[in-house]
Amino acid sequence: MTLSTRGLRAALLAGTLALAAQAPAWAGDEAEVKDFLLDNGMEVVVIPDHRAPIVTHMVWYKIGSADEPPGKSGIAHFFEHLMFKATANHAAGEFDRAVADIGGSNNAFTSYDYTAFHETVPPSALEQMMGFEADRMRNLVLTDDVIKTERDVILEERRSRIDSDPQAVLDEEVDATLWQNQPYRIPVIGWMQEMQQLNREDAKAFYDTFYRPNNAVVIVAGDVDPDAVKAMAERTYGKVARGPDLRPRIRPVEPEQNTRRTVTLTDARVSVPSFSTQWVVPSYHTAKPGEAEALDLLAEILGGDNRSRLYQQLVVKQGIASEAGAFFQGTMLDATNFTVYGSPRGDAKLSDVEAAVDAEIARIVRDGVTDDELERAKTRYVRSMIFARDKQDDMANMYGSTLATGGNVKDVEEWPDRIRKVTAGEIKAAAARYLVLDHSTTGYLLPQQQAGN
Amino acid sequence: MTLSTRGLRAALLAGTLALAAQAPAWAGDEAEVKDFLLDNGMEVVVIPDHRAPIVTHMVWYKIGSADEPPGKSGIAHFFEHLMFKATANHAAGEFDRAVADIGGSNNAFTSYDYTAFHETVPPSALEQMMGFEADRMRNLVLTDDVIKTERDVILEERRSRIDSDPQAVLDEEVDATLWQNQPYRIPVIGWMQEMQQLNREDAKAFYDTFYRPNNAVVIVAGDVDPDAVKAMAERTYGKVARGPDLRPRIRPVEPEQNTRRTVTLTDARVSVPSFSTQWVVPSYHTAKPGEAEALDLLAEILGGDNRSRLYQQLVVKQGIASEAGAFFQGTMLDATNFTVYGSPRGDAKLSDVEAAVDAEIARIVRDGVTDDELERAKTRYVRSMIFARDKQDDMANMYGSTLATGGNVKDVEEWPDRIRKVTAGEIKAAAARYLVLDHSTTGYLLPQQQAGN
Repeated sequence: MTLSTRGLRAALLAGTLALAAQAPAWAGDEAEVKDFLLDNGMEVVVIPDHRAPIVTHMVWYKIGSADEPPGKSGIAHFFEHLMFKATANHAAGEFDRAVADIGGSNNAFTSYDYTAFHETVPPSALEQMMGFEADRMRNLVLTDDVIKTERDVILEERRSRIDSDPQAVLDEEVDATLWQNQPYRIPVIGWMQEMQQLNREDAKAFYDTFYRPNNAVVIVAGDVDPDAVKAMAERTYGKVARGPDLRPRIRPVEPEQNTRRTVTLTDARVSVPSFSTQWVVPSYHTAKPGEAEALDLLAEILGGDNRSRLYQQLVVKQGIASEAGAFFQGTMLDATNFTVYGSPRGDAKLSDVEAAVDAEIARIVRDGVTDDELERAKTRYVRSMIFARDKQDDMANMYGSTLATGGNVKDVEEWPDRIRKVTAGEIKAAAARYLVLDHSTTGYLLPQQQAGN
Repeated sequence: MTLSTRGLRAALLAGTLALAAQAPAWAGDEAEVKDFLLDNGMEVVVIPDHRAPIVTHMVWYKIGSADEPPGKSGIAHFFEHLMFKATANHAAGEFDRAVADIGGSNNAFTSYDYTAFHETVPPSALEQMMGFEADRMRNLVLTDDVIKTERDVILEERRSRIDSDPQAVLDEEVDATLWQNQPYRIPVIGWMQEMQQLNREDAKAFYDTFYRPNNAVVIVAGDVDPDAVKAMAERTYGKVARGPDLRPRIRPVEPEQNTRRTVTLTDARVSVPSFSTQWVVPSYHTAKPGEAEALDLLAEILGGDNRSRLYQQLVVKQGIASEAGAFFQGTMLDATNFTVYGSPRGDAKLSDVEAAVDAEIARIVRDGVTDDELERAKTRYVRSMIFARDKQDDMANMYGSTLATGGNVKDVEEWPDRIRKVTAGEIKAAAARYLVLDHSTTGYLLPQQQAGN
């Protein structure tokens, strides 16, 4: 789950990131990507893209909700909001107005592993953006009044985006059931009773620990010259003092799952039932070589789009499902989840859809995938990466999320080659090892039954 | 779950505590219970009991598994083990031998909210026991070698007591599903992968923070004079310097549960299926006045013993269950759980037993309990407290566990009166408020099915 400060772009960005996870960008035949460190430990990545006079500037902090202290859930996302408040040098709203005045756009988002701030502006405004970002990295004015006002905002955000949406309420409890030890079980937005207690002291401690140049990565994608960007970065970010070394991001890890778990929400507001089943699987950062790539292609073949097995079998051939698919969230710092889902159509029952999804998984575990469908999946996958290069912000997101979750520039650039090397045997092995129903977690969203049913 | 250092007495003590939770002791017509503080902040409670020349001496530390730092699960129980190692003044085993030489017994146990050490000896040996306990409170010699050796012991304990027992494996994952935020979701013994990493540094930090006189309660029950005990305590414990003030035990609390959750373990070693359903409910420490007492009587009436509704209806009348019951674990620092359980007999199906248990709950929610059965339940409950006075270690346990979970001597003494005041309406209200199936967590332990079933 990714939360964004302003609602309108939230959906867009969530969509962007979901696409990015499937469709990484890399700058193959464009000018070479440049990656350097400032003296204060800040990493800067420049992705030249000269097709249009525009630049995407992002600051990624290696701090997300999964890094929050116990009992302080929501502080990472809360802090993302606070970053839009007044600093010692700029009144609240001044940064936003500067972006708007030059016809740019800006926003921010928080996820489990990172918090990012970004602006899209003409290249002539890049140094100004860097100046604003460098300023708010250390100079926020955190008064009790600012804290109280913005805390009311995030509480209202929780009420409107989670508590009033049965699917969101279910998702939270499914996550907390799938993850019994690893912090991804805690919602990014936070538990209400803990959000209500967040205070200035918490915010100050969080800011001083994590908002430091040596905990940040700047991504600049666009119509810029890398040497000029480096000089600008040194003039702006370079003035911010390095902070104390941070502890390694070693978080509690998940014990082996030995049970089949279900979580059911029945609600009068639900009209069509649905289910999703999840498994704990390795991410690109934790997997053995090739395993995350195999999981990406398994998701693609099983349920990636309307050419996938689940769609073809359940929606097209059997006609029992209105939707059915699979996805894998590979770009995470710790172990991640592989998900299948479905919803019935017409008179079909949810249990029929679930059984048909299970049957498709069993078929891959038993018979594997064909060389032909593997080749087609690889082609689709790699082609989607090429298409993604057309979108500057997708490229920036891909580099940023990879670098904020333990990867590097080379990982992004070599990804297509690693996808091409996956064998059918590796996909069958990944399905057999991970997609075991007796060790799964399923969420059910059900309409309220008539009395007596 | 309570873990004890040595296996043989573990079962006894677990039994003792389970009984104690149902059957508190108080020293009504015996000499008055004395409660005092030493200058270093250590609390001492003396319960005179002159029927036999014997004394039970317990040291309760207000530190349990729910207080462990993230990623360090098992450290509280591990530290209980380490307390039996060498100190600067006594070789490993010397304390144990001293107890054995005088025909006494000793042991220790760890739970979510406390860790306790105890000896039962002739009164003449009490000061010697206090001396040993005061010594190991601060003078343990924690070498890497000691850590490594004892860590192997707790790892083996986990393998033999949890990992080789399907019920224990299921219970762990049910706990982690019921509790999605509060630390009771973490097993007292710890998650294997975290126990393996516990090191000398972790142990030292834990010892220095929590093993302090100002974080301990001493309970002395037996053939002793309170003034003499006070003098002894001052000569022994009184020499230990007060430690830094501890932070209040404010832990992450549970969000509202909106879903029905199930956790199923299917295992070839299981012969008879069983289920248990749990709800998050307030403990004596968190409840509004009278609510925990109502939950105690609700558990008694619904499924406390073979005169309960569940036993009479399912085991005696319908004959479908080999066992069925209910319990409430009231003596906890934070919110606790209310549990119902059952297992089928003969040809009955598990689902029949579960439905019959649900029906009995629904009947109380709808119709409440009769005045007659409430009176009988109160009489049984209060009488069990009177019987418990006959057991010196039950008395000591009751005072110790109450004082280590936020209560005081008066709470123990007034408990019978508070139980007598509960009304039938309060019991019906507690059942209606808390025992809601759509917001419950059920664990199923199932035999391996034949293929095709």
